Amino acid sequence: MDLKKSGHQKIDWVKKYMKVINSIKEKYYDEKPFKGKKISMSIHLEAKTAYLAIILKQLGAEVSITGSNPLSTQPDVVEALKDYGLNVYAEKTLDEGVYWKNIDKVLSQKPDIIIDDGADLGSRYIEKYDTNSLLGICEETTTGVMRYEALNKKGSLKVPVIAVNNSKMKYLFDNRYGTGQSTWDGIIRSTNTTVTGKNVVVGGYGWCSRGIALRAKGLGANVIVTEVDPIKANEAIMDGFRVMKMDYAAPIGDIFVTATGDINIITKKHFRKMKDGAILANSGHFDVEVSVKDMKEIADSIEEIKPGVEEYKIDGKSLFLLAKGRLVNLVNGDGHPIEIMDLSFSLQLEAAKYLLENPDQKINVKPVPDFIDNKIARIKLETMGIEIDTLSKEQQKYLNKGI
Amino acid sequence: MDLKKSGHQKIDWVKKYMKVINSIKEKYYDEKPFKGKKISMSIHLEAKTAYLAIILKQLGAEVSITGSNPLSTQPDVVEALKDYGLNVYAEKTLDEGVYWKNIDKVLSQKPDIIIDDGADLGSRYIEKYDTNSLLGICEETTTGVMRYEALNKKGSLKVPVIAVNNSKMKYLFDNRYGTGQSTWDGIIRSTNTTVTGKNVVVGGYGWCSRGIALRAKGLGANVIVTEVDPIKANEAIMDGFRVMKMDYAAPIGDIFVTATGDINIITKKHFRKMKDGAILANSGHFDVEVSVKDMKEIADSIEEIKPGVEEYKIDGKSLFLLAKGRLVNLVNGDGHPIEIMDLSFSLQLEAAKYLLENPDQKINVKPVPDFIDNKIARIKLETMGIEIDTLSKEQQKYLNKGI
Amino acid sequence: MDLKKSGHQKIDWVKKYMKVINSIKEKYYDEKPFKGKKISMSIHLEAKTAYLAIILKQLGAEVSITGSNPLSTQPDVVEALKDYGLNVYAEKTLDEGVYWKNIDKVLSQKPDIIIDDGADLGSRYIEKYDTNSLLGICEETTTGVMRYEALNKKGSLKVPVIAVNNSKMKYLFDNRYGTGQSTWDGIIRSTNTTVTGKNVVVGGYGWCSRGIALRAKGLGANVIVTEVDPIKANEAIMDGFRVMKMDYAAPIGDIFVTATGDINIITKKHFRKMKDGAILANSGHFDVEVSVKDMKEIADSIEEIKPGVEEYKIDGKSLFLLAKGRLVNLVNGDGHPIEIMDLSFSLQLEAAKYLLENPDQKINVKPVPDFIDNKIARIKLETMGIEIDTLSKEQQKYLNKGI
Amino acid sequence: MDLKKSGHQKIDWVKKYMKVINSIKEKYYDEKPFKGKKISMSIHLEAKTAYLAIILKQLGAEVSITGSNPLSTQPDVVEALKDYGLNVYAEKTLDEGVYWKNIDKVLSQKPDIIIDDGADLGSRYIEKYDTNSLLGICEETTTGVMRYEALNKKGSLKVPVIAVNNSKMKYLFDNRYGTGQSTWDGIIRSTNTTVTGKNVVVGGYGWCSRGIALRAKGLGANVIVTEVDPIKANEAIMDGFRVMKMDYAAPIGDIFVTATGDINIITKKHFRKMKDGAILANSGHFDVEVSVKDMKEIADSIEEIKPGVEEYKIDGKSLFLLAKGRLVNLVNGDGHPIEIMDLSFSLQLEAAKYLLENPDQKINVKPVPDFIDNKIARIKLETMGIEIDTLSKEQQKYLNKGI
Repeated sequence: MDLKKSGHQKIDWVKKYMKVINSIKEKYYDEKPFKGKKISMSIHLEAKTAYLAIILKQLGAEVSITGSNPLSTQPDVVEALKDYGLNVYAEKTLDEGVYWKNIDKVLSQKPDIIIDDGADLGSRYIEKYDTNSLLGICEETTTGVMRYEALNKKGSLKVPVIAVNNSKMKYLFDNRYGTGQSTWDGIIRSTNTTVTGKNVVVGGYGWCSRGIALRAKGLGANVIVTEVDPIKANEAIMDGFRVMKMDYAAPIGDIFVTATGDINIITKKHFRKMKDGAILANSGHFDVEVSVKDMKEIADSIEEIKPGVEEYKIDGKSLFLLAKGRLVNLVNGDGHPIEIMDLSFSLQLEAAKYLLENPDQKINVKPVPDFIDNKIARIKLETMGIEIDTLSKEQQKYLNKGI
Repeated sequence: MDLKKSGHQKIDWVKKYMKVINSIKEKYYDEKPFKGKKISMSIHLEAKTAYLAIILKQLGAEVSITGSNPLSTQPDVVEALKDYGLNVYAEKTLDEGVYWKNIDKVLSQKPDIIIDDGADLGSRYIEKYDTNSLLGICEETTTGVMRYEALNKKGSLKVPVIAVNNSKMKYLFDNRYGTGQSTWDGIIRSTNTTVTGKNVVVGGYGWCSRGIALRAKGLGANVIVTEVDPIKANEAIMDGFRVMKMDYAAPIGDIFVTATGDINIITKKHFRKMKDGAILANSGHFDVEVSVKDMKEIADSIEEIKPGVEEYKIDGKSLFLLAKGRLVNLVNGDGHPIEIMDLSFSLQLEAAKYLLENPDQKINVKPVPDFIDNKIARIKLETMGIEIDTLSKEQQKYLNKGI
Repeated sequence: MDLKKSGHQKIDWVKKYMKVINSIKEKYYDEKPFKGKKISMSIHLEAKTAYLAIILKQLGAEVSITGSNPLSTQPDVVEALKDYGLNVYAEKTLDEGVYWKNIDKVLSQKPDIIIDDGADLGSRYIEKYDTNSLLGICEETTTGVMRYEALNKKGSLKVPVIAVNNSKMKYLFDNRYGTGQSTWDGIIRSTNTTVTGKNVVVGGYGWCSRGIALRAKGLGANVIVTEVDPIKANEAIMDGFRVMKMDYAAPIGDIFVTATGDINIITKKHFRKMKDGAILANSGHFDVEVSVKDMKEIADSIEEIKPGVEEYKIDGKSLFLLAKGRLVNLVNGDGHPIEIMDLSFSLQLEAAKYLLENPDQKINVKPVPDFIDNKIARIKLETMGIEIDTLSKEQQKYLNKGI
Repeated sequence: MDLKKSGHQKIDWVKKYMKVINSIKEKYYDEKPFKGKKISMSIHLEAKTAYLAIILKQLGAEVSITGSNPLSTQPDVVEALKDYGLNVYAEKTLDEGVYWKNIDKVLSQKPDIIIDDGADLGSRYIEKYDTNSLLGICEETTTGVMRYEALNKKGSLKVPVIAVNNSKMKYLFDNRYGTGQSTWDGIIRSTNTTVTGKNVVVGGYGWCSRGIALRAKGLGANVIVTEVDPIKANEAIMDGFRVMKMDYAAPIGDIFVTATGDINIITKKHFRKMKDGAILANSGHFDVEVSVKDMKEIADSIEEIKPGVEEYKIDGKSLFLLAKGRLVNLVNGDGHPIEIMDLSFSLQLEAAKYLLENPDQKINVKPVPDFIDNKIARIKLETMGIEIDTLSKEQQKYLNKGI
């Protein structure tokens, strides 16, 4: 009962700051573009994603939804969501069986469109189900896009995938500014330690990790970046950061954060070199970047010493792993800020609508069309009351003329 | 039961990162400098302050303690603290009567030393009690120091006051870096909104407020500062901020934060000009900077719409007041980061010890002696493994020689 | 005589910090890959570009060279360059006839490869000469690439063009960090005014202009960005800048800088609104961004009041135009920092070598191949003594595997 | 002839941006407060200081002036200054004899007031002359104030000294923002190397050096600070910088800058550890911070390889010393930005006027009275068109009331 009230409070709150999707909803409300369509969603189940699902329903869709990560599901939001007439199959759980059972329940509706976050939902559908009726998949994350591209390379991608992640209004904002703020929110909230004056080691210098590095610097840390890409490594240096191998960074770091999309960024040999009291967190999609497997293997003891913080005793030192190595911003916090998800979900909505209106897509992983990206950007400016210049005919002509 | 466990977890956690006070405790442990002495404390009652009280007890003192702010008391910490053999009189409450009754309970021990946060405890003692046995007061905050100085000006200060707040290792760190980080923690945690891209209006440009402005910038905000001091106003401009009257800032700001130590920074006329959805928070000691009184007078309705967030409907717009206008970092968060309080509380401990060892102080508000400030600074560097240069005789001589 | 000595000093100096191209030169020195080949160059004629030309000569090429901008040619460098056995046709001049005559002199050698900066050299060759023997053009700038792409769209591009500008080790570094530092060097050097505390208006938020904005912020300015692209406008906001129409920025700005690649960013109506004492500079390739034409039309008087600074009296106010609206970093300074040009010119060298070794390119504007980009990045890290991580097989496999 | 024209151009230019002193001059113009008074000045002789001297003359004073540093004197400004009817005794020279002869020429006027920069002028007067008629000295720099305080400690200070340096509108602005910008101007201008991506080692973390560190960070450097004061060391860490002994920093740094007011910050043992190509600069008052004496002792060769840059060959490596270890911002640049000196010189003018109007000062080194500091701050805000809030009676009362 209280759970449901809390869930409604959260949803009512995010609604106030999701001005872009509110503006889009208003425009489409009479038209009901998703009428008669079935949408399957797998997405971190908290208030903002809930609100996307609600709007899809309000614009006519039949929506089935589950959580994209076993630990990020918020039970109060799940309860509230049921009041809106959605089919919700989600539990906060570590039981993998339950996780996949919920995914199958969602998929059993035979969706017209899949909205995915990490590619578990869509790839399951492709592997196990008849995809005939499916118009396409909209994928939210870097990790998910990489997985669908791998499928495509193998020739197993049976439906078009819109890489929502690859649109500028997504990755330039969600990955960078969203991850940047929410990662530090998750870390600070669960540790109450200073960021200022700390040696922060950031694994990677892609959009997510550079957001994390940028905000660490903004919070007063001395930041070290590790990378495998020499160009990104040079960028990190030019941005004022130290760049080195994780081997060298391990004994220096006070706080480690990974966001690379790859496995084994921090492993056994690194843990052994770390300082007593080092804090470890991950903002990448899966819990494989800080190798929890390795930590478990070499730990003398493991104890959850406060919510979201586990103490691993290794070689007589204490290492503190946050959120079990899963997405620290979602598990130990409330995920990305509302206004950031507003952009990502507005893109999801428009991408889903685009698939509906352009059903004969080539089977491929493709970006959101530019006109959608620009449209979302313009609406966002409008909601902030910001006016920008427009190219005059003369200026347009000059750009095109060449010699 | 669970409450007590949670309290112990919190205290055990902060202990790990309070390395300076741990180092001091170790040094004094055999000596027990506070043996036979009674210390009365009024301080925000959460894990870090609890740990100071515990250490004072472990170094020999009889400690009575209450919360310095009715809303910042954490019940789990209160429960755990009782296990350590301290006299704890604290409740999270809005009942002023209860608040003062607890203060009187603490004072009834007839303290040798008072450790104060905001001057409620000490000024009550001066006003209502016989201060003969009291060696002095150690005051933590800007607000408290201002109040004791006012008492002194009136000739009513009966005991020496050590302005812990005025030592560099306090105000340069706690006020600036501590308030900077914890204020944004409190705001982000309770709103989940972006700071990046927002117009943030900071009331004041003293140490606290410049910490808030610095971190707002570090988090990507566009910061506006309001000030009454023309020199500080010029500094804010040179630091890249816009400076203007609150009148002009009111309609521009998305988030407002005050930390001035004065009243009525944001008042009726400002609320009326604000944007729908504006967020209001305060990090100053009392809930008088954002005039809650004014807000209540002109609001059509007031509702707590989620924990720590009240919606005030004013002229058809929604303004969101955080933490009822009280210290947002303490009420909506866990207060200053551990390592920052480690510095402040190490100063408190050393200041209390200094009063003990130098009982015949002039009645005055005086700073912590420089040697203590430097000592804490050196221990902090040691705990971080950082070595710095030392003046050579030649260099020392050059500095002294003049022509 | 002294002129020549000064030129040699400058070239000897840049040689010390161009470590990437030095490393490449060493590797190719015995091989002499450009032996028997003729290279025509048009490039800002100062020490760093001179050094590229010298190395091309040392690696076997016959080099003819002129300046890509009438005002950026440094006479002392021209004199010194002649000592190295290059054909130099360059004068610092405002006489357009002389400019084009020098270009024709260079082209008369019938080049195998053209190295261009702004597309004047290559497009002249395409228009007026027989391009049969030309293997291709390497173009340095955004502006030049846009011009060649326009030619290509019209079907008039007769040779392959390598868009050196579009390689990451160019635009991420030269355009952003190079322009950022050198623009402010040019402005500060010629005005001796503060940047800190000023309202700086940056026209555009492409790589060049965001470098300018980033450094303005780093120097303490309050930065306003104007844009026509809604996505870039949103990025600028998220980076903490104000974004508005130039119309609104005109009366606020203390210093205006443009770098858009387009015309008429600041025009008549803007000049009329500006503050007395406003400073105007451009870092875009051509002197058309701050409309000098418009300024001249409405000015009551124009006077060069100190080197590189002209006072335009407009409506009783003084506006100060730097470098006649031409590239302020080159005309009022020494251009991009050495280490930045080291990257760009290493790319030029490798791109030219690539054209030589792969003569049958499709006629098109194409990027530098990735392997060259990565190679330059790796050499740069080596010269700084920085080691980075390498993908393990396991990590590589994970990235490729998908589900 | 051309020299004189160039000097006038420079003075006319700075006049445009020295709005605070212009505003003060206007107010006092009819009154002529310095009428019949003799003012001796020793100050870096460039356009801004020249303008202060001119205004003093225009307000009635008889002014004799010399340069406070043998290398910072600009001959063109000297020539122009003579046109204004001042007694100018200054040459750009390394001849110490000439330097002191000029000082004596200035002092021979028997000044009523001395305006000093570094304490050479005033301490000479105290040592060698009859100081009876002297009302006092206004000292500009940290170094000078330290020297006068040392004199005072020895009981040899015969006249009151106003420590203009110690007023907030001086050291918070000139030392921090002024030194910060102008130091990097001097370094970039004479080297054309990147600051971004470099390891910059800053000697000290006082107001000057923290300005240098702040701007280095703003320009993209990775900054290392060395300090002897443990509190400042902690501040530097909290500001995100690395702090270490110069011993450890020596082999890491690409660019070294000192500004401590002490000797031997970088010495023999450090030079031997440095990287080939390291750049050394000083912004402290005297050329003793980077020990040029030590460099000379261990160098195999020394050569000025371009204006303002000397190559020292040490142990087979090249170290580049800028500006002969003297103030790099003045010797290799044009000194502090105009608007910064406008504040400092407005303080000088008001301090001199204060000495005149309050002739019976205690002999002491004392700060500029607060009312002057605030006055300058308010005029500065006015010139920028910035309005700030004012304390209401209610607010004033609250601040004073205590309990």
